Amino acid sequence: MYLITSTREIKALPRGHRRVGLVPTMGYLHDGHASLIRRARAENDLVVVSVFVNPMQFGPSEDLARYPRDLERDTRIAEAAGAEVLFVPDATEMYPAGFASRLEVAGPALPLEGARRPGHFAGVATVVAKLFHLVRPNRAYFGEKDWQQLQVVRRLVEDLNFDLEVVGCPTQREASGLALSSRNTYLTEEQRQEASVLYRSLRAAQAAYRSGERQPQAIVAAGKALLAAAPLELEYLQLVGPDLEDLEQTGELGDPRQARLLLAARMFGVRLIDNAPLVQEEAT
Amino acid sequence: MYLITSTREIKALPRGHRRVGLVPTMGYLHDGHASLIRRARAENDLVVVSVFVNPMQFGPSEDLARYPRDLERDTRIAEAAGAEVLFVPDATEMYPAGFASRLEVAGPALPLEGARRPGHFAGVATVVAKLFHLVRPNRAYFGEKDWQQLQVVRRLVEDLNFDLEVVGCPTQREASGLALSSRNTYLTEEQRQEASVLYRSLRAAQAAYRSGERQPQAIVAAGKALLAAAPLELEYLQLVGPDLEDLEQTGELGDPRQARLLLAARMFGVRLIDNAPLVQEEAT
Repeated sequence: MYLITSTREIKALPRGHRRVGLVPTMGYLHDGHASLIRRARAENDLVVVSVFVNPMQFGPSEDLARYPRDLERDTRIAEAAGAEVLFVPDATEMYPAGFASRLEVAGPALPLEGARRPGHFAGVATVVAKLFHLVRPNRAYFGEKDWQQLQVVRRLVEDLNFDLEVVGCPTQREASGLALSSRNTYLTEEQRQEASVLYRSLRAAQAAYRSGERQPQAIVAAGKALLAAAPLELEYLQLVGPDLEDLEQTGELGDPRQARLLLAARMFGVRLIDNAPLVQEEAT
Repeated sequence: MYLITSTREIKALPRGHRRVGLVPTMGYLHDGHASLIRRARAENDLVVVSVFVNPMQFGPSEDLARYPRDLERDTRIAEAAGAEVLFVPDATEMYPAGFASRLEVAGPALPLEGARRPGHFAGVATVVAKLFHLVRPNRAYFGEKDWQQLQVVRRLVEDLNFDLEVVGCPTQREASGLALSSRNTYLTEEQRQEASVLYRSLRAAQAAYRSGERQPQAIVAAGKALLAAAPLELEYLQLVGPDLEDLEQTGELGDPRQARLLLAARMFGVRLIDNAPLVQEEAT
């Protein structure tokens, strides 16, 4: 395993004719990340995992300072999953004095997380563009857990004509249904059990659809019903279309296979997000 | 000469191990562009000239609609100067429906043109990033005539870790001293003679420095003196440092070899810009 911390070195990484897969992460890797790395391993000749807690995507009142870090553990997990290179720059390496550029994405970056975390997706888009230039991957892997981020990255890659494939990978979950997230480490085991209500609410909305409900309002209401009694502040639970448009606003379900449920809530002082397709393909 | 109009085709351009030089232009080529193309020809194995009047870098009250266009002439000039590929996309090819990305640069993009043409440098930076991804040049050539633009592109390339070299090339001038610009076509021959006062004012400021003047204010005043009686509206004539900081504000000349005179003025209904180093190296 090569540990690279400088942008100069990662740019000079010998690659020959190897196909390169990049898995950008903020570290504190879990099985969700491992599944991205394994997928990248299967589809490429060389896998680079970046570990960078990107200050540009955190708001002033967010958890940048306490975001969990454990490079030794990350190294073990990344290597076991098939990574050959870990790129771990520090903030001054990525944003040296005089840095002045910022990639703004409108469209899919505007609603939901974009409305609640000003500057967040500009931070994501900017660091992703830098990583793409530094690593020059043939494919880049992102988890569907951050569904809106995945749409923003796809938009960015298409708009700016990046020459690579963006691969979205399914969310990994605990047995309770809670989506894996590095931020789950802020919760106790008992709190994680309680937080699984978030995914259960998405399942309840899916169930309403399966029972024949076709009104976006009613589908969302079925999801929200489960959250009413839970110890959380709901930021949003929305049913959205392929461009992240709020289907309760349009009142039209459109193609149900393109509809998705997205939620964000604060539980036990931690901001958690999750999402699921309206029409869940059952595991066979 | 290959004329390519689609992003798909330019991306697929066979290059083998050839070094590629890119000369991004808005067309209506003149000897300034030709000098960039010849330089690119000398330093690379394959020269791509892009011709795209980029709507994103024009303000609503600017000259997008009347900007001069002549593809046949451009083809002849580019070929004679050594280009093999002319990339001429239309606006829907570069900005298809749903396009939502925008590269903002602060720092060198903020003062001067940036303050007077809101969105201009974001438009430049965005299209330049797209062209870099589409053509993947080893070197990209920009004229010093657009000095601030050159600084913005250098900033962008460094900030986002683009893997290419930005080459700035000296301004070409008419015999009168007027900087070559596609916009000069808006002027009659007589008006072009009168417009040479812009360069003469920069020369007057240089002369003040050569005579021993070291106060930024006095140097700028020497330049402005020539413009007072001319039929123009001066937008700015500034002496700036390496980060485009206004040296009249700081009151310090700093390293004179890093100082530059920049001006913008409206003459005969046309907005013209020019610039020159404070310390002009005389032709030998």
